[in-house]
Amino acid sequence: VSGATRPSEGIDRVAIVGAGLVGGSIALAADAAGLAEVRLFDADPAVRERAAELGLGSAVHEDLAGAVAGVELVLVATPPHTVADVIAEVARLVGPGTFLTDAASLKSDLTLEVESRLRDAAADPSRFVGGHPMAGSERSGPDAADASLFQGATWILTPRASTADGTLQAVSGFLRRLGARVLVLGPDRHDELVALVSHLPQLVASTLAEVAGSAVETTGDAVLAVAGGGFRDTTRIAASDPDLWLGILRGNRPAVLEALDRYRRRLDEVADALATEDWSRLETVLARASAARRRLVPKADQGSAVDLVVALDDRPGTLGAATSALGEAGINIEDLAMRHATDATRGALLLRVRRDAATRALAAARDQGFTAHVEEVDP
Amino acid sequence: VSGATRPSEGIDRVAIVGAGLVGGSIALAADAAGLAEVRLFDADPAVRERAAELGLGSAVHEDLAGAVAGVELVLVATPPHTVADVIAEVARLVGPGTFLTDAASLKSDLTLEVESRLRDAAADPSRFVGGHPMAGSERSGPDAADASLFQGATWILTPRASTADGTLQAVSGFLRRLGARVLVLGPDRHDELVALVSHLPQLVASTLAEVAGSAVETTGDAVLAVAGGGFRDTTRIAASDPDLWLGILRGNRPAVLEALDRYRRRLDEVADALATEDWSRLETVLARASAARRRLVPKADQGSAVDLVVALDDRPGTLGAATSALGEAGINIEDLAMRHATDATRGALLLRVRRDAATRALAAARDQGFTAHVEEVDP
Repeated sequence: VSGATRPSEGIDRVAIVGAGLVGGSIALAADAAGLAEVRLFDADPAVRERAAELGLGSAVHEDLAGAVAGVELVLVATPPHTVADVIAEVARLVGPGTFLTDAASLKSDLTLEVESRLRDAAADPSRFVGGHPMAGSERSGPDAADASLFQGATWILTPRASTADGTLQAVSGFLRRLGARVLVLGPDRHDELVALVSHLPQLVASTLAEVAGSAVETTGDAVLAVAGGGFRDTTRIAASDPDLWLGILRGNRPAVLEALDRYRRRLDEVADALATEDWSRLETVLARASAARRRLVPKADQGSAVDLVVALDDRPGTLGAATSALGEAGINIEDLAMRHATDATRGALLLRVRRDAATRALAAARDQGFTAHVEEVDP
Repeated sequence: VSGATRPSEGIDRVAIVGAGLVGGSIALAADAAGLAEVRLFDADPAVRERAAELGLGSAVHEDLAGAVAGVELVLVATPPHTVADVIAEVARLVGPGTFLTDAASLKSDLTLEVESRLRDAAADPSRFVGGHPMAGSERSGPDAADASLFQGATWILTPRASTADGTLQAVSGFLRRLGARVLVLGPDRHDELVALVSHLPQLVASTLAEVAGSAVETTGDAVLAVAGGGFRDTTRIAASDPDLWLGILRGNRPAVLEALDRYRRRLDEVADALATEDWSRLETVLARASAARRRLVPKADQGSAVDLVVALDDRPGTLGAATSALGEAGINIEDLAMRHATDATRGALLLRVRRDAATRALAAARDQGFTAHVEEVDP
């Protein structure tokens, strides 16, 4: 989308429908970006009241019609199942020149439904483009609003054939003013990708945790003693809220099924290689996986980095002292993690540093009285 | 193993064969525990020389016979494929009263082989017990030796029917003096458990990274923008060394195959539930997984904790300042992680704190000029 920032200069009055974490954060960020008018509306009177108390946006409106009247862009940040209704209602309230977008996490069915609802309402679907901010995790409510939530975050826009170029450019420009990086994807492609890198990992991790958990019934607590950092990392997201994920999986069922089938076929090949002792095939999978992980997650786990492992107890303050020691030595910490001891009373801090800074990092930690050593990443 | 600590008081002279990370760390820890004699031997002259320079143990011996003569316990910490040979050789050199143990990561075939080799050498297999320290990651060589490596770590001992109670008690007592927590498991059970919580997660993570990686070929860099913390965590160990893992998988093939088959059957059920829209069955799996993860990893990701998310840049020192701010406010950081922005130039620090300390943590961070907000764990 070349020259995309120019038309956005024109967007100076926006309305945000939904004053939760996302809507509230957009209001704060738009305010900070210097927009002339940032109006907020929420169907819940208690949320409106709280948003007003927090001073989110330039005004919190008591009715939708008042909020959207005369604005150049309406951004709908309500729960996904309400988005199509809200956009259809907004379309009846605004003039034909108003841009419309949303922030729901699935795009394929929703953008199709919005397009159809806009046509039904005799509104112009070319003014709508679907959106999905990849902005971390969701604490709900206006109190969670944060002006920096989208700073450096990717905001995916999913135009359909009916979307006008000017709509994409205007909404992109606005999002960039919030600090976001805009990525344009087709709605189907968007849903395929989140199925692959978000929904599939959830099923993979949940199934792994469930299988290990059912082993506890036969093996007792020994599993806990044997489970190390690899198990912890691989199953971390399995602790997520089941209801939340059920909703997501329902909403993206075809794409998740396809990703899951692709994964299962590959896992069948891995099992077959192991069963038939085809070690060269298994090595190929492991090597391709290792290369893929390093390519997909560019910064962490690079071969040029090592972990400084600092023994810690659970007292407050030691963590700050350890990381400060490195900072004062001019050593940048590229990643970090906590390694808990099995009994959860004693742990170690893993500070990832560049390999060429490892010796200085070790000396800096030991100078401060810490027991520390250096480990290779991901052995 | 009741009364296990008493007999160990008698072990005062040990020999460690293999002066790498594990052997060197045992030597340092045994020295620190006040043993009268801690002898070290390594087949590699360069390793011996370096171990001597580093002052590991009370003496580094030039020959195996000299190292093991007259000691009460010989601990073999050489590469797994050499362990049976080394123990057979040691058995010919020591008297019948000397205890023998090892530190290899697989136990089923190895302990059987050691037992058979000891019988062949007309030595007493009742004096041997297999061992496996669950002590973090393996950097190799004597320079990586660390006196605190086993402090609080689980050290699994895997007696066979032929192992004498006195052997188990003596070796347990010695390991406890190194700071380790001893867990006794049958050799087969040990290999089944590591297959389930270490080797299976590796295959699961590698296959996931490989599937996502092959998608890059068709979708380009968009995958990188969409991949979030869940994908990063779930695939982290996929970046491991393929050769290392190939060796582990070869060595534990039957147990890994069984764990993998159990996992695949469960994943088939998940796919079937999704395909047939059997949402209650899918919810059951997700809920069981969530409960299992919380039970298996007791400390991290508890519902009583939240993440304080602090925006950071890559300058050295900001990390220390942020964690110090919490320490000074008396707030304990229970876990932590780095969230990298997609473009890897800007990131956020996730500090896990108890829910009841979240407000104070937020205030402490903001007082120090940080942009911060609080997020739910694992949304």
